[in-house]
Amino acid sequence: MTTERGYATGRARRDRIIAAATELFGRVGYNSATMLEIAQACELTRAGLSHHFPTKESLMEAVLETRDREDRERFRRNGSPRADGLGVLRGMVDLARRNAEVPGIIALYAVLSAEAAAPDHPAHDYFVRRYERIRTETARALRGTRAAGLLGDRVDPDAAAAELTALMDGLQLQWLLDPSSVDMAGIMRQRIEELLTAPLDAVP
Amino acid sequence: MTTERGYATGRARRDRIIAAATELFGRVGYNSATMLEIAQACELTRAGLSHHFPTKESLMEAVLETRDREDRERFRRNGSPRADGLGVLRGMVDLARRNAEVPGIIALYAVLSAEAAAPDHPAHDYFVRRYERIRTETARALRGTRAAGLLGDRVDPDAAAAELTALMDGLQLQWLLDPSSVDMAGIMRQRIEELLTAPLDAVP
Repeated sequence: MTTERGYATGRARRDRIIAAATELFGRVGYNSATMLEIAQACELTRAGLSHHFPTKESLMEAVLETRDREDRERFRRNGSPRADGLGVLRGMVDLARRNAEVPGIIALYAVLSAEAAAPDHPAHDYFVRRYERIRTETARALRGTRAAGLLGDRVDPDAAAAELTALMDGLQLQWLLDPSSVDMAGIMRQRIEELLTAPLDAVP
Repeated sequence: MTTERGYATGRARRDRIIAAATELFGRVGYNSATMLEIAQACELTRAGLSHHFPTKESLMEAVLETRDREDRERFRRNGSPRADGLGVLRGMVDLARRNAEVPGIIALYAVLSAEAAAPDHPAHDYFVRRYERIRTETARALRGTRAAGLLGDRVDPDAAAAELTALMDGLQLQWLLDPSSVDMAGIMRQRIEELLTAPLDAVP
């Protein structure tokens, strides 16, 4: 086996471990998932798994990093051509629609973020920072629409940012429990359009 | 020990077990909590715990039943004197404010509801039914305000019910992660008032 081929094999195995961990963390939570279960799902021994990820914590870090990288890549590929405020808000509606295609990922964030409310959870700081960032970016997008004369006069961008972030999470939870119960993208679009002075698609 | 006294002691021990399980399920989740940890938190042996609750599942059922009963009692005690639509909506704002006093309970529902998205989780059916009921009751309250001429013309009661339910859950998650990050009751009140044609407190 050449070194290059060995590297590719190692990377493929690493990707497979991360996929198995993503599935298991999303189904049963980080706290209850065991390294042995993850190893078995990848047809590895426990020692074989440790060679790639010495601890469950290091594996969760890799899962979250992989998700963040894939999200950035997806955003670059499919994202709105407009990076201004309106483009970001349209992106939120698109995200709600596309999320319905990746229930495992939605479950992952739902379970991990709730577990991570405990201050001693290894992903606690990650999720605190994640939500700060999402609120900040959403508030910036809303201010962008205000500068363009498209935001309702009475809308407070910071409160609306927290509200839209909460709405997305709460809709995902209802949808995970019963996919027929809520129209995630429809409700997100409706709410965002109420904040604006023009329909999302009416503005070029 | 008289039978009556023995009964009271047994009930006190049962209450203590339920309190310990509520705390542990809210902190680490149902999946990862063990009966041994719960027994130790109550200074019982594992066999002593089994005498009251033979399985972890039976204990979780008792935790959820206890929460539901306490919620109903709290609602009767502190609830709005008006059981009409507007009273229910005011009750949602009150609930958001009071929830900030019981972080352990909020954590319990956040973690269990996310875990319960897995169809084989023992609380799956409980949470599916719980959300159906919350949406139905909220939609009924919104229709009540419409009958009283207090709901905005363009508001769809069913979509708004799913939205308010989602908003409450999502705000709780952000608040659990960082209590200084969001004003749960303020954002709930603001959103509910936008749906109405008059401020919540302006109507007698």
